[in-house]
Amino acid sequence: MKQFEYVEGGVTAAQGFRACGVAAGIKHKDRKDLALVVADAPTAVAAVYTTNKVAAAPVQIDRERTRSGQAQAVVVNSGCANACTGETGLQDAREMARLTGEALGIDEQLVLVCSTGVIGALLPMERIAAGIKEAAGALSPTGGSDAAHAIMTTDTVDKQVAVELEIDGKTVMIGGMCKGSGMIEPNMATMLGFITTDAAVHHKALDQALREAVEVSFNRVVVDGDRSTNDTVILMASGVAGNETLTPYHSQWQYFVDALKTVCLELGKKMVMDGEGATKFVTVRVRGARTVQDAQVAARAIAKSALVKTSWFGLDPNWGRVIAAVGYSGAEVDDQKAQIYYGDICAYDQGRVADKALLTAMQDVMRKRAFEVTVDLHLGEGEDTIYTCDLSYDYVKINAEYTT
Amino acid sequence: MKQFEYVEGGVTAAQGFRACGVAAGIKHKDRKDLALVVADAPTAVAAVYTTNKVAAAPVQIDRERTRSGQAQAVVVNSGCANACTGETGLQDAREMARLTGEALGIDEQLVLVCSTGVIGALLPMERIAAGIKEAAGALSPTGGSDAAHAIMTTDTVDKQVAVELEIDGKTVMIGGMCKGSGMIEPNMATMLGFITTDAAVHHKALDQALREAVEVSFNRVVVDGDRSTNDTVILMASGVAGNETLTPYHSQWQYFVDALKTVCLELGKKMVMDGEGATKFVTVRVRGARTVQDAQVAARAIAKSALVKTSWFGLDPNWGRVIAAVGYSGAEVDDQKAQIYYGDICAYDQGRVADKALLTAMQDVMRKRAFEVTVDLHLGEGEDTIYTCDLSYDYVKINAEYTT
Repeated sequence: MKQFEYVEGGVTAAQGFRACGVAAGIKHKDRKDLALVVADAPTAVAAVYTTNKVAAAPVQIDRERTRSGQAQAVVVNSGCANACTGETGLQDAREMARLTGEALGIDEQLVLVCSTGVIGALLPMERIAAGIKEAAGALSPTGGSDAAHAIMTTDTVDKQVAVELEIDGKTVMIGGMCKGSGMIEPNMATMLGFITTDAAVHHKALDQALREAVEVSFNRVVVDGDRSTNDTVILMASGVAGNETLTPYHSQWQYFVDALKTVCLELGKKMVMDGEGATKFVTVRVRGARTVQDAQVAARAIAKSALVKTSWFGLDPNWGRVIAAVGYSGAEVDDQKAQIYYGDICAYDQGRVADKALLTAMQDVMRKRAFEVTVDLHLGEGEDTIYTCDLSYDYVKINAEYTT
Repeated sequence: MKQFEYVEGGVTAAQGFRACGVAAGIKHKDRKDLALVVADAPTAVAAVYTTNKVAAAPVQIDRERTRSGQAQAVVVNSGCANACTGETGLQDAREMARLTGEALGIDEQLVLVCSTGVIGALLPMERIAAGIKEAAGALSPTGGSDAAHAIMTTDTVDKQVAVELEIDGKTVMIGGMCKGSGMIEPNMATMLGFITTDAAVHHKALDQALREAVEVSFNRVVVDGDRSTNDTVILMASGVAGNETLTPYHSQWQYFVDALKTVCLELGKKMVMDGEGATKFVTVRVRGARTVQDAQVAARAIAKSALVKTSWFGLDPNWGRVIAAVGYSGAEVDDQKAQIYYGDICAYDQGRVADKALLTAMQDVMRKRAFEVTVDLHLGEGEDTIYTCDLSYDYVKINAEYTT
């Protein structure tokens, strides 16, 4: 049973948070590119970072700072990733935090920093400094939407989700925003996610909840199979809702975790829907795999295959490319046992190919904005699901023209 | 010192072989789609097959047959891969061999079978049978080019290479043909390669030479990162040249191996140049890696990245995407030690980004049909090279429209 309701809003849906987005002129003129998310007081914090061995300067700073389990503000810029920028980059990231702490009158150690954009460029620190000052004066308990716009890069729409639930008879909100449309894949890539809640949560429990949620959401999203230097998801819990502090021993712990998973999953789906040039949202399910690990590698191989993705764009139920992807994924597969479905229609059934008459029905499935491709390997109980999109002309256009 | 010369020709450059290509109407009318390569007598044979766990029927048959180390003919069809076709598919592949043996008056066990094309369709056996009969009558010692045309699918040009060298004072020829343009990657994919030589080579030595050659050629080629169900490379040695039988103990063994490597590498490069929609031939070199294994995974990650490939298409020296790919490849990398070059121009030098003034020079490098991207990790002695192409609008077009 669902224990939460969707509501309007993003990072300022929860009580105790203010946010804003301003145009600091980092890469483009007159485009919001600097965001603040600020809690009224220090909060519990948890974060998950990229697994890329090349980690941007802000990621290196935040990894240190979130170990304390406490934070009060996040400053985010788009237009420049501050990655591969060496010692200067680290200094700049620390300076962004110091400037933010100064402008807000809070301890700079409680400020986290995120950057997204082009790799290898130094931050324009004068404009950043001016932007932070302006942003500190623009904070608002309804500023979530401005912040969500300011963190966008090649995103075509802002991405926000919020839910409401009840814990200990108190109303609890969980809301978030994210950016990301290319380079998105399991283990996250060029994505930034910020989630706030007014629930009271022990910071170690918060960390556990976030890891569980990321695993079934952001880590299940594949656009093009790349992973970035800057990926970060930060979750802050203000405790203003007044519930008893949540830990896994609280009777309503699972309600909180499920609601958090939903926020993360819906944000992840919004990234797929906004995948660069995407025209289709495709849910890839693998079941009947020998192991869960097999299901995972098979689903990822399908979702990452350029040949499979172009066939979706072309409304071509080319199950041959799907089974070929499973075949090289490393998963066990016997083509005489496997079944492949487009929606509910079986395209390939244990050695038998669907009647030509079903081709139109399969193309009708694929004509929808969202559809499912299911592979049943009939070798065991392993299951996995990945969310992804097709590969279109516009993917090439966007990424060929997005310049260094 | 190079011990060989390039010459005209393909699978019939070597003495003792005849070939042909005929139009059997397998998928299209009036287009060559069935090829024979036939030796005048049984020859030594070696072969390398796909690592995809879903192997097409002909691959299963050939794996068995090439264990003997002897063969006399190969029959190849395009238009239908005979993959995922179950017991009927296996029967059809065996029947193709039987019909060929019958038409040629040779032992059917000495006939190998290859198919390429759409997965999941059954072979049109009546047309195949008629085509084999016609082909048997059309064999010619100058038929290599017709055969090279008959094995094409989405290929836009036929691919043939031949070299001449001297062993034991005898003239030896090595010539080959291949097809493949999409789904090509290390461990081979949707590629068929056929190489013949008139050298006398022990069949076990032939196997060793082929494996060495494939490792530095076909396994160094990446177009889109997929691997197919049908990949096969077959090498036949007629012995007609009259040299002493080659083994690794022959003083001129390495001449033979080097020439074979060249034939395979040139064929592999032709596949990349004909990569679906490719506009650029890119050599990706990784050096200074901690280990050879690190160099390999890093080079492959760069060559497979859709983001990197689209940046090449867009003439964008986006080294950030290159280092991000290395970062998620699993290879050790320290962005403060790494260097990235486009041609001879250093785009990223151990934390320092190239001056904007060099951008034009880098774009001039990328404007060429072929260029090199080099990553020096400065962590050890590991090196690897991969040959690949860019990702263009036409890749999407070709693969969205190539229908099941």
